[in-house]
Formats: sequence, C-alpha cells, structure tokens
Amino acid sequence: MHHFEQDAQAAGSPEQPIGVFDSGIGGLTVAAALRRLLPNENIYYIGDTARVPYGGKSQTTIERYSLEISEMLLACRAKMIVAACNTASALAVPRLQQSLAVPVTGVILPGAKAAVAATRNGHVGVIGTKGTVRSGAYERAIYSLAPEVRVTSRACPMLVPAIEEGWLDDPITGSICARYLEDLVDSGIDTLVLGCTHYPLLKQALARFLGDGIQLVDSAENCAVAVRQLLTEHQIAAPLTQTGTLEVALTDASDGFLPVAEQALGLKVGRVRIIGVQG
Amino acid sequence: MHHFEQDAQAAGSPEQPIGVFDSGIGGLTVAAALRRLLPNENIYYIGDTARVPYGGKSQTTIERYSLEISEMLLACRAKMIVAACNTASALAVPRLQQSLAVPVTGVILPGAKAAVAATRNGHVGVIGTKGTVRSGAYERAIYSLAPEVRVTSRACPMLVPAIEEGWLDDPITGSICARYLEDLVDSGIDTLVLGCTHYPLLKQALARFLGDGIQLVDSAENCAVAVRQLLTEHQIAAPLTQTGTLEVALTDASDGFLPVAEQALGLKVGRVRIIGVQG
Repeated sequence: MHHFEQDAQAAGSPEQPIGVFDSGIGGLTVAAALRRLLPNENIYYIGDTARVPYGGKSQTTIERYSLEISEMLLACRAKMIVAACNTASALAVPRLQQSLAVPVTGVILPGAKAAVAATRNGHVGVIGTKGTVRSGAYERAIYSLAPEVRVTSRACPMLVPAIEEGWLDDPITGSICARYLEDLVDSGIDTLVLGCTHYPLLKQALARFLGDGIQLVDSAENCAVAVRQLLTEHQIAAPLTQTGTLEVALTDASDGFLPVAEQALGLKVGRVRIIGVQG
Repeated sequence: MHHFEQDAQAAGSPEQPIGVFDSGIGGLTVAAALRRLLPNENIYYIGDTARVPYGGKSQTTIERYSLEISEMLLACRAKMIVAACNTASALAVPRLQQSLAVPVTGVILPGAKAAVAATRNGHVGVIGTKGTVRSGAYERAIYSLAPEVRVTSRACPMLVPAIEEGWLDDPITGSICARYLEDLVDSGIDTLVLGCTHYPLLKQALARFLGDGIQLVDSAENCAVAVRQLLTEHQIAAPLTQTGTLEVALTDASDGFLPVAEQALGLKVGRVRIIGVQG
C-alpha cells in the first residue's frame, strides 16, 4: 500500500462507509435518519446484541465495548464512527475521539443543540431510559450550551419494551405515553428531547399526546445532521454519483425486534451477519 | 474445628440459613413465600443485580455466575441453596447439584409438578420472559413428569418492566395482561404457570382477568413447598423455637424496585448489603 492510500485510510476516504453502532437494534433509527438525509452514503451498522443493554454497566466497560465495536467498524473501512446509543454517547465518545483516527459523534450533543435552538420558553423536557436519565448527560450537555435553559427529565422504562413488542400504534402504548408525559407537560416544557434511540419509533404516538404546543427533538435526526456536517468538514462526503447501501451485523442473533424496526423505519436490511465478541 | 462440626457444616445444620439467589430482586417473591411457609427459617438472599438479567447469556456463563453466588451463600453458612431465578433453574441447577455439598432446588421443577397435579383437562399454559419461554424448560419438565399433558407457552416481555415500575394494581397493567392472556385462554388451558419469579406480584391482576375457570400455579409458593420437603428429608429444618430472619445482599445498588417488592410482598428487608462480584 503506498503512502497516499494510507493517508486516505486514516482520514477516511469518501467512498468508505459510515460506521454506526449501538448496544442493540434501537440505533437503526439513526441509520434510517442517515439513509434519508444522506442517501449516497454507505452505512455499516453493528448492534452489540450479545452485550445489550449497556445502561447499568461501568464507564470502563462501556469504553471497552465501544472501542471493540469501533475497531470492528474500522476493519470494515468505516470513515467515521457514530455512537447511535445514548449510554455509549454519554460515557465513551470522549475516549473514542481520543483513540480513533476518524471523526466520531454521538447522539447526545446533537440532540442537546437542537433542543437549545428549539425552546422559546427556556424549559426543555428529556425522556430516556433509567440509565440515561440517571447519568444526567442531557442536562450537562444542555447546560454546557445554554446555562439558562431549565431541563426536566423523566425516565420511561416501559417504552423500550413496548417498542420491542412492536406495539407502536397501540392504545396500551398510548396510555403508557400519557402516564409518563402528563407531569412533564404540566411542568411547562415547550420542547421534548427523545433521549433514547428507540423512541423515534413512537414519534407519532408521542406527538398525538403532546399536540402542537410542544416540539419534539428527534435525536436520531439531529445526529444525522451532525454527521453531514462532519463529513463536509473533513471532506469525506460520498460522491453524489454513489448509491448508498446499508449493511447490518449483530454480535448475537436477534430476537424479533429487527423485523419490527425494519418495517416501522422502512429500512431494507437484507441478510444480517452475526459476528463474535468476547463476553 | 473437630470432626462433628465439619460434618454438620457439609450437610448443613438446622440453625443455619437457607441461601436464596436470583439475578435480581424478583426472587424476593420466593423469599416471601419461604417466610410465610417456614417462619422459623433464617433466609439469606443474594440478588446479582450487577449482572442482571441472566436470560440471554450462555449456559457456561450462567453456571459460573450461579456457582459464584452459591459459594457466597455457603460462605454465609447456607445449609441449602435455592435458585429463585428461572434462567438459573433451567440452566445451572444440575451443575450446582453436582458441585455443592448441600441440597439445591430451583423453581421450575416444583412449578411443573404443581401444574401437572392441578390440570384436569391436561392443557397447561406457561407465561414467562422471552428467555424462559425460548428455553422450553417448563415444557421439558412437564413432559418428563406427564408426557400426555399439553403445554402452551407465551412470552410476556412487558410484565417485568410493569412490575418493576410498581404498576401492580393498575389499568395499564390490566390491559397488558389481557393482551397476553387472551389467546392462552382461548386455547383452552385450565392451569397457568407463572414462570417468572416477578409474576406472583401480579397474581391479583392475572386472577381478575382469568376468573375461576383457570387455576394459577405460583412457582414461588411451590418452590417453598419443595424447600420444606428437602429440609425434612435432610433433617435440617430449623428448630420451632427459632424466629426466622431475612437478610438481603445485592451485587450492585438497586434502582427503586426493591421498595416496590418490599411493600407488595409485605417483607421487612432492612439494611441491604452491597457485595462485589467480577464482571
């Protein structure tokens, strides 16, 4: 390999795929947002289903997992890395940015930026898993951008199971959303961040309950916008003549949620590779 | 230590506690059933909350975790071991029985026995987590006891999250139960095994939906009956003069479900010790 190719490899060259990872399948909402916004880009997605969920594990462990999966993506020639996972975004992105030679983004900072831009009354709500809410990652990110914005968070542990059951447009899920959002709405937020990569699959159900007064911030979509910006900055956006593809690999056989996500997101995933990781 | 004491240690002596473990806090339903049935017994419970859930992990891993936690219980002088966890019962009890010098029981065989005894039309339903249902452990256990009994299983992945939210007597949980049980009831079962240690906390909600025609088999209660029998067989039942106590240790700080379980089960847990395990 001559010198030019090595450089291109390190910085990432335009034809190479964007590497996306999540602890599971929820991050496919980010892959879908990338497909919509950047149809020329190839995407290589790895879901670490063997070790899902990352939430609840220590920072050291999450960093190790995220590095391992990122190395796998780089071995598939990824030109940049997207942590499409709130836990990995909160705990491992700084380490990935230090360690890897390619650009790295997570989902939290793009979501926080969009929320700060969207709020008019300065009161933002955040919903997420117990782990994400307990970590305070969105509060910190929003505070770092706009210390005057007030953040009210609510853990919604029933939403991921409901989504994984495929109960997306469902009266039971509607009742669960209402239960979780009632107090948030009463608290006076005008913006709600979907702080979990699964939640965009409930966007319709959530919007129906919230009505027009509260703006939804879809962190998958905002992450895709951040990716586009990084590609431009680093001059590694795919040529417009390229037709993007999506390849999906999982670290353990999936359990029925993949077809749900494929259908709800209108993604054509095709054959899924199973790749090994250590425990 | 002279010879007599060593023997007593190996076989377990009556004053020593019953060791109970689960991957988390759900197994406290078994501890509660033991407290009710055997009020003279001391119980030492360990919830492996650092590594919850066991479901989805390999048999080798589950065996290793179960042996580690059992050794901790033996270090606390447990005279017998109860795997109050369906995954560990399905995958690790044979190994524990081989390796440990004290009697061992799980929750699956006692539940299967009770279901076979209860059914009149020979059609038993089983509800559990995805992992338990996929393992086919109840089918196998029931088949080994009564090959003529038909078993219809249904995974109910929303029930554990609902229970851990504390939504026990709740219209949303009622709707979820109805959704899951409708087909089972239509299939003609006359007996339903609660194949998850969390589920006894929903017994009222489930019984309300099922009515009088279907008998519930509470595997926590049946496990307690099996424990009583083992204590008698091995002549290690606590003296009737003893007042039993419950001690609880977790391998990681709990997240709010412990108070729910305490209240719903009427258990006085007191101070919970946090003990370390390797990842």
